[in-house]
Amino acid sequence: MANPKLMPGLRAAIAASGLKDGGTVSFHHHLRNGDQVMNMVMDEIAGMGIADITLAASSLFAVHAPLVEHIRQGVIGAIHTAYMSGPVAHAVSRGMLRRPAVMHTHGGRARSIESGELRIDVAFIAAPTADACGNMNGVDGKSACGTLGYAVADAHFAACVVAVTDNLVPYPACPIAIGQDHVDYVVEVGSIGDPSGILSGTTRATTDPVGLDIARSATRVIAASGLLVDGFSFQTGAGGISLAVAAQLKQLMQEGAVQGSFASGGITGYIVDMLEAGLFKTLFDVQCFDLKAVESCRRNRRHLAMSASMYANPQRRGAVVDQLDVMILGATEIDLAFNVNVTTGSDGMIMGGSGGHADAAAGAKLAIVTTRLNAGGYAKITDRVTTITTPGATVDVLVTDEGVAVNPLRADLLERLRAAGIALRGIGELRALAAARATTVAQRPSGQARIVALVEYRDGSLTDVVRMVA
Amino acid sequence: MANPKLMPGLRAAIAASGLKDGGTVSFHHHLRNGDQVMNMVMDEIAGMGIADITLAASSLFAVHAPLVEHIRQGVIGAIHTAYMSGPVAHAVSRGMLRRPAVMHTHGGRARSIESGELRIDVAFIAAPTADACGNMNGVDGKSACGTLGYAVADAHFAACVVAVTDNLVPYPACPIAIGQDHVDYVVEVGSIGDPSGILSGTTRATTDPVGLDIARSATRVIAASGLLVDGFSFQTGAGGISLAVAAQLKQLMQEGAVQGSFASGGITGYIVDMLEAGLFKTLFDVQCFDLKAVESCRRNRRHLAMSASMYANPQRRGAVVDQLDVMILGATEIDLAFNVNVTTGSDGMIMGGSGGHADAAAGAKLAIVTTRLNAGGYAKITDRVTTITTPGATVDVLVTDEGVAVNPLRADLLERLRAAGIALRGIGELRALAAARATTVAQRPSGQARIVALVEYRDGSLTDVVRMVA
Repeated sequence: MANPKLMPGLRAAIAASGLKDGGTVSFHHHLRNGDQVMNMVMDEIAGMGIADITLAASSLFAVHAPLVEHIRQGVIGAIHTAYMSGPVAHAVSRGMLRRPAVMHTHGGRARSIESGELRIDVAFIAAPTADACGNMNGVDGKSACGTLGYAVADAHFAACVVAVTDNLVPYPACPIAIGQDHVDYVVEVGSIGDPSGILSGTTRATTDPVGLDIARSATRVIAASGLLVDGFSFQTGAGGISLAVAAQLKQLMQEGAVQGSFASGGITGYIVDMLEAGLFKTLFDVQCFDLKAVESCRRNRRHLAMSASMYANPQRRGAVVDQLDVMILGATEIDLAFNVNVTTGSDGMIMGGSGGHADAAAGAKLAIVTTRLNAGGYAKITDRVTTITTPGATVDVLVTDEGVAVNPLRADLLERLRAAGIALRGIGELRALAAARATTVAQRPSGQARIVALVEYRDGSLTDVVRMVA
Repeated sequence: MANPKLMPGLRAAIAASGLKDGGTVSFHHHLRNGDQVMNMVMDEIAGMGIADITLAASSLFAVHAPLVEHIRQGVIGAIHTAYMSGPVAHAVSRGMLRRPAVMHTHGGRARSIESGELRIDVAFIAAPTADACGNMNGVDGKSACGTLGYAVADAHFAACVVAVTDNLVPYPACPIAIGQDHVDYVVEVGSIGDPSGILSGTTRATTDPVGLDIARSATRVIAASGLLVDGFSFQTGAGGISLAVAAQLKQLMQEGAVQGSFASGGITGYIVDMLEAGLFKTLFDVQCFDLKAVESCRRNRRHLAMSASMYANPQRRGAVVDQLDVMILGATEIDLAFNVNVTTGSDGMIMGGSGGHADAAAGAKLAIVTTRLNAGGYAKITDRVTTITTPGATVDVLVTDEGVAVNPLRADLLERLRAAGIALRGIGELRALAAARATTVAQRPSGQARIVALVEYRDGSLTDVVRMVA
């Protein structure tokens, strides 16, 4: 069916969108380190001579290295993102961006878009399947990525929405994750990305004995918390220890015949297994972390896609994270006040960001940070983290290879864990151990160095700033 | 899971919503003549002494008779709706409402809500299934009604949203048609309605020989139009002749091995049969007209729910009706300019309204009106319809028991039908036949009578007014 929305190429769509110098463009990151859309679009924008663009990308990965040149040339003048790693993150840390980057949480990003604080002129949506009217889904096509949860706010609130697809199907696409009533233009390209890049970072449970030991301790904490009863809900990232917790929890739930209500967040095959084993009634999926999750999202009706706003927006009417019992969190660093850093390395170089970290910590009844005491010679438990990503007031327990520490704000939990026979240590004690074992002390940026990024909490307040690395 | 959204009753939810005199409340009509929520809520509002409410109901039926007393007492001061029949419609026609009722189309209603023209203070959503956080669906529960398409704009744009359910399930409800991020309060009641009331009006194909003859002619027109090829799309209402067209079309498509793309609108079991027979790839369902459609909506992934905005909002980025090939429309009256009245009887009494009539006529490539020449002694083909619901410029063909007339604006179609050997008559000729057979001439309201309703076109312009019936 011929349709006036169908543009002959990206450049035509950008021209039709009316994008001008100083405009804001947005992207979602479900194709993660396999994404090709952001690079293609920014190349076109650069080629059209448009400058000083604000890039509102839900996350940035190593694959986006070509953007560094656009930052250097002033094509990109500002960045809003919930996560960045690789060359773009390094360029920002080194002060190449004109204005400080804004690093929000996944829920905070949805909040800022839906509240009108972050106005998007043109949203480019990598669509694994789309029709010429703009109906799209992420579950079909050669570049299937599963849910399109992070793109929903962009599609609903951007002034102009462009679907970019490598699987243009006859009308209507089915199922429909984002509907034609939100889409202005459709562009067919050869490839939107490499779905094998979805599997960026670890998506296997650790087999390392120390990691497994930490996972066992974390699982014992969950068991002792009183939360592991029918209706239990759970979220974990895709790190090796986190996935080992999921694997052990699965066994525990099966033994105890616990019927959980839901697991949420980014979804891996481990969590899909738990759904299929009947341990959770439902999954709330904002991001498929592997191809097994993509496949489950395609065929299992109890594997629900959710928007970032439904996931974690603190200013809507109750997010899914607010219903969470247990969240397993990673940490680059954690400090004596239980503040967590997942934004920068100990040297202050940006290498991540909150994503949903601060959101889930705030929502969950029990937010557990799992980490080794040391890594790469550095102490991971510090007096004060290099960058506060997630405030300590929202973190309940720290589980390490040398024991478990409970946030003193959670006296109730302290009693429960003690009663369950879990040996507890003060976080100061763990800090001392980590320091004693450290072979290197990180050189942090000077407190007088230029501010290169603002770390925004989910409600838009600032938790910290990131300073330039020389 | 305890949840602060869960209110002990409707009154508590209304109080919490902050509804005041002069406020606007909204309702959807998927339970049609079985709905009990609107009456319950308006009784509570009346009991709380709140007055001069604007009632924004997507449709009103005979079951809503108790509202007449609230109109009389000034509890309801204004009405916005796409359809009304029964005692409320009569009360409005007799001038009981203080201000003129606004009668929009289904797409126009979504437009007015989403544009901010119609501001809803509190949306009450009859939810066949909901959890305590407000996730809801229409496909499960004893009062299952299928899609909740008309309620989506209300949920997304009302200042306060109250889910009213008779099937409160543990968190999370699954599937989710309207998410918790849009819901403020949840109220559990004994019954939201009688799902057998969904089957209001005819939902069986006519068996009357005259009706069948009209349906055969309409099917011949479709066959001759050139549109009945792969990718064909179709919509019909639930009237007896319309359903007979669907049944005949099914046979024709099977014989011709035509693979349609979609059928849309309100969905009946006849259309479900066509989906299941592979004659359409997909259904776009804004309203299930019978329990077979409800069941299909529940279990068939190709039976897609759509919002009223996606269905027909003329100010979004392309509605489903714009992709329609053929629409079969009913008519109370049709005039020499092909204007159609489905709002009032020939005596000027309100007994319906556009619903999606004007939307689908505007969108479809071929909008066919099917009607007998006469009914109840009246001529249905008139010089000028009593009330213009759907402008003649959007109506292409009239099919009657005495022949087919093509809108002179569609010379292309005239040629095609003639070439296919379909005998055509001028609409004036059909008008004359109808007049000759009429035994009664309707007494219309005086052109000086008070205006009791405004007939709004989908874009918000006025197509007509309705005057008071003495």
